[in-house]
Formats: sequence, structure tokens, C-alpha cells
Amino acid sequence: MSDVEFAVVGRSESAARTVVTARQFRLVVDEPADLGGSDAGANPVEHVLAGLAGCLNVVAHVVAREMGFAIRSLEMALSGVLDPARFRGEPTSARAGFREIRAVLRVVADADPATLSRWLETVRGRCPVSDNLANPTPVRIELEERNPGESARSWG
Amino acid sequence: MSDVEFAVVGRSESAARTVVTARQFRLVVDEPADLGGSDAGANPVEHVLAGLAGCLNVVAHVVAREMGFAIRSLEMALSGVLDPARFRGEPTSARAGFREIRAVLRVVADADPATLSRWLETVRGRCPVSDNLANPTPVRIELEERNPGESARSWG
Repeated sequence: MSDVEFAVVGRSESAARTVVTARQFRLVVDEPADLGGSDAGANPVEHVLAGLAGCLNVVAHVVAREMGFAIRSLEMALSGVLDPARFRGEPTSARAGFREIRAVLRVVADADPATLSRWLETVRGRCPVSDNLANPTPVRIELEERNPGESARSWG
Repeated sequence: MSDVEFAVVGRSESAARTVVTARQFRLVVDEPADLGGSDAGANPVEHVLAGLAGCLNVVAHVVAREMGFAIRSLEMALSGVLDPARFRGEPTSARAGFREIRAVLRVVADADPATLSRWLETVRGRCPVSDNLANPTPVRIELEERNPGESARSWG
């Protein structure tokens, strides 16, 4: 199978709120009031945690099927802690993002604990979102070239 | 300012669909039909790109304000390419996730190109989501300890 591309377009609606279009879906990203937003949607890092949860669910089922057992239910609690000092521009040695991300899986499955341990290790290694967080992923941010004075057209 | 924790809870609704609760927000993560889902929501990696877009918007405005210029409009096109071989369990040397992520910013601002270049570098370094993707972020995935035979209660 060949490479697959995923793409979204985001439009700033305020200093904290972004409306993102992903195919036919519209996602609102905002910040709560204490982080300067109008709280119209989950915030950026909550969207990342949501993506990780969704990815773990998909891979969990693919791998369980391969290993020959059924998942009867799966719930996931994901969390991370960050120090907002760098984000705010304060002098700090702390990184900008989460120091680590923790995902606790509550699974009910027709499998013994040893099988579930092997399953969990395989899931971790095959989840694209987990890989992009755990291992360096170059993030290339560029300004679009445009002619001076050109006004904004609309993408997407 | 001290550490801030962010947390979500995800519940598997099918092998591809996860409903995520982030505070008062409900996010549906699914896969399109060709990736095994029912296409009820943006997929996991699209949610990650949405989080990155939202983060860049917030930091873009914070830094512009510090630098003394106004952003009149900001649109962002984000994309990434991945090889699904590892996800599918096929023999491969490819990583599971995006090889890189590209974000193209279309900004209309009251600032000259040199100022915008400095602005962009500062935004990159202070965006939590960009940091979590570009630099290694430990992802700790654990199974909840539970008593044998205990049935699933509901979190969150």
C-alpha cells in the first residue's frame, strides 16, 4: 500500500478560536476563558489527546483481531501536564508542551493478562499518533509566498 | 504560573469510532469507510492536525501582540503523509505516523517580511502542540488494574 496524505485547513476566527475543516467535518478549537478564549470548543491539546484516544481504539481492535480475541469494551483516560511559562514567553527551562502523556486503558476482553500485555505493546508501536508524539516528527511551518498588497483569498 | 493538567476520556463505540469527552465537549473520532470506519467524524490524525492549527493560531496572536503588530487574517493549511504499512502490521521499515507535518500559514498582518520571519520562529518554539510533535514526548500507556471478573464501570 502506498502513502496516504491527510490534510486540514484552519481559519482564525479570533485570537483563540480556530475553525478547522477536515474533509466534510468542521472542528472548533478554542480556549477556555482563563486561557484567553471564548470556550467554544475543546482546546488544542485536548484535540491532540482526542486524536490519540481515537488512534489507540482503532489499533487496539486491529491487533486484538489479529491475536484472536474480542474486545468487549474499551475506555481510555488520557492526560498530560504542561507548564505554560514558555507559551507565555516567560523565562523558563521548561518545554512548551506536555512533559509526558499518560493513557490508562480500561479494557474488558476475552484474553488473559499475558496476552493483554503483548497486545498493549503491539498497539503502542503501531499507533500513528502515538508514534508522532513519542518520536520526533519534523514540523515545517512556512509562510505562504504572496504578492505585496494581495488580500486574503479563502482556502479549502 | 504552575503546571496545568489537561485530560479527556474516550469510549470505544466501535472498532473505529471513539467518543471523546473533553470537559463539556464531545468529540467524535472515526475513520472513513476505506479505513474501516463509518465516517462519523474526523479521524485521529486529522484531530491532531486540528490541534496543531488551533495552537498555532493562539500562539501567533500572543506573539504578534508582544511584537506590536496586528494580525488581520490568518489561514493555515496543514498536511502530513504516512505509510499505513506498520499500522496494518505489514513488514516495513517505515514509521507508523506522519514522516513530517507541513503547515503553510497565509497571514495578512501589519508587519514587514523580516518581522514576520522572526514572529514565525518564535511561534514555532512556543506552541505546545508543535513542541509535542517535533520533540520526543513520552507516551505512557497502561492497563488499569482491576479485579478479575469486574465489569466495566463508566469513567468521566
